[in-house]
Amino acid sequence: MGILILAIRPVDDDIAMLRAANIPHLFLSTSFDSQNLPFIASDDFRIGYQATDFLIKKGHKKIGIAAIDRHTYIGTQRPWLSARHADHDLPTKPAWIQDGHFTYDDGIEAMKTFGAKPELDAVIGTSDLAAIGVMNQAETFGLNVPTDLAIMSIDGTQMVKIVRPQITSVTQSFYEMGSRGMKMMLQRDMTKFESQYTPFRIDEREST
Amino acid sequence: MGILILAIRPVDDDIAMLRAANIPHLFLSTSFDSQNLPFIASDDFRIGYQATDFLIKKGHKKIGIAAIDRHTYIGTQRPWLSARHADHDLPTKPAWIQDGHFTYDDGIEAMKTFGAKPELDAVIGTSDLAAIGVMNQAETFGLNVPTDLAIMSIDGTQMVKIVRPQITSVTQSFYEMGSRGMKMMLQRDMTKFESQYTPFRIDEREST
Repeated sequence: MGILILAIRPVDDDIAMLRAANIPHLFLSTSFDSQNLPFIASDDFRIGYQATDFLIKKGHKKIGIAAIDRHTYIGTQRPWLSARHADHDLPTKPAWIQDGHFTYDDGIEAMKTFGAKPELDAVIGTSDLAAIGVMNQAETFGLNVPTDLAIMSIDGTQMVKIVRPQITSVTQSFYEMGSRGMKMMLQRDMTKFESQYTPFRIDEREST
Repeated sequence: MGILILAIRPVDDDIAMLRAANIPHLFLSTSFDSQNLPFIASDDFRIGYQATDFLIKKGHKKIGIAAIDRHTYIGTQRPWLSARHADHDLPTKPAWIQDGHFTYDDGIEAMKTFGAKPELDAVIGTSDLAAIGVMNQAETFGLNVPTDLAIMSIDGTQMVKIVRPQITSVTQSFYEMGSRGMKMMLQRDMTKFESQYTPFRIDEREST
């Protein structure tokens, strides 16, 4: 048995404590660049890359990001800008990336910064709640979603289905992360565990 | 120290196990008719009564309930019908009360049963998600909220603020339940504990 750690980004002290405790542990829904911390999570770079690719194929050229925490590994693993640059030679601006911590209010604030007449034609929210915040602020500005502005979220929980319009999402396999994690803890020798990514898909709804 | 049990309705086996374990325990956000189980929660009867009263004062006369679990103590403590009867001599029908388990889908199903031309002029959802389900199905039917149908929810979490229109709610003191519960566990002799109700308020928004 051991500890499953859900969607938490540990600081150095946490990691030191975990190692000192010598208890098997596994991070779910949080990935790391170091293989020293075992995880089951989505591949954040691929999520960002494919979300951007989806929007570009729909004809969008000016894509913003709301509520991203650039100082975390998750943040650094979502460099849509370079992916876009490399593949499509599209322009971008630093102001099209708005920082935050994945919250609803961060989404609201990001859209306020993009403004009532945004230069952007699409925004990716780094969580469902962030995307809903972007959408609500866009509609407060009188913008039509998706006609004036397309919106996409990353997570794909029930939240994206209860709002109107329903939000197109990159849908992560949270259930599978939990299920795999529990099985690993119960059945495996964790010393041989190799970190792994779970699949994700894009669910197109009404906001794009 | 002991166990805080959050929003869980125990069955007889659970209660027997809790008592046999002889560990101090306290239920949060779940009330009971028996004083043998200690709780900190809202007074569900008063919530239902005041929600109905709020709608009646706004001029509504035909009020439905969506997603109520009548077989739980919470369900039995929300007899809005009798309260309405006693105070306002208003009519009611069994079909205006739709059972469920407080979920979004229960709200959708309740509204489908009320129909595209509902006899009701207001519906109370027994949770925020249930009320959002009612609202989304009402709008799918082409009804305008609140003009054609007023909607009110019980809980008042962030959910009621992220949907449009924002939903008028009975807002419970969940934070206070947790805070009081933790203090009790840390500071008090639980053998002397007396169950208590936390305050609630009505927050009027755009759906009524």
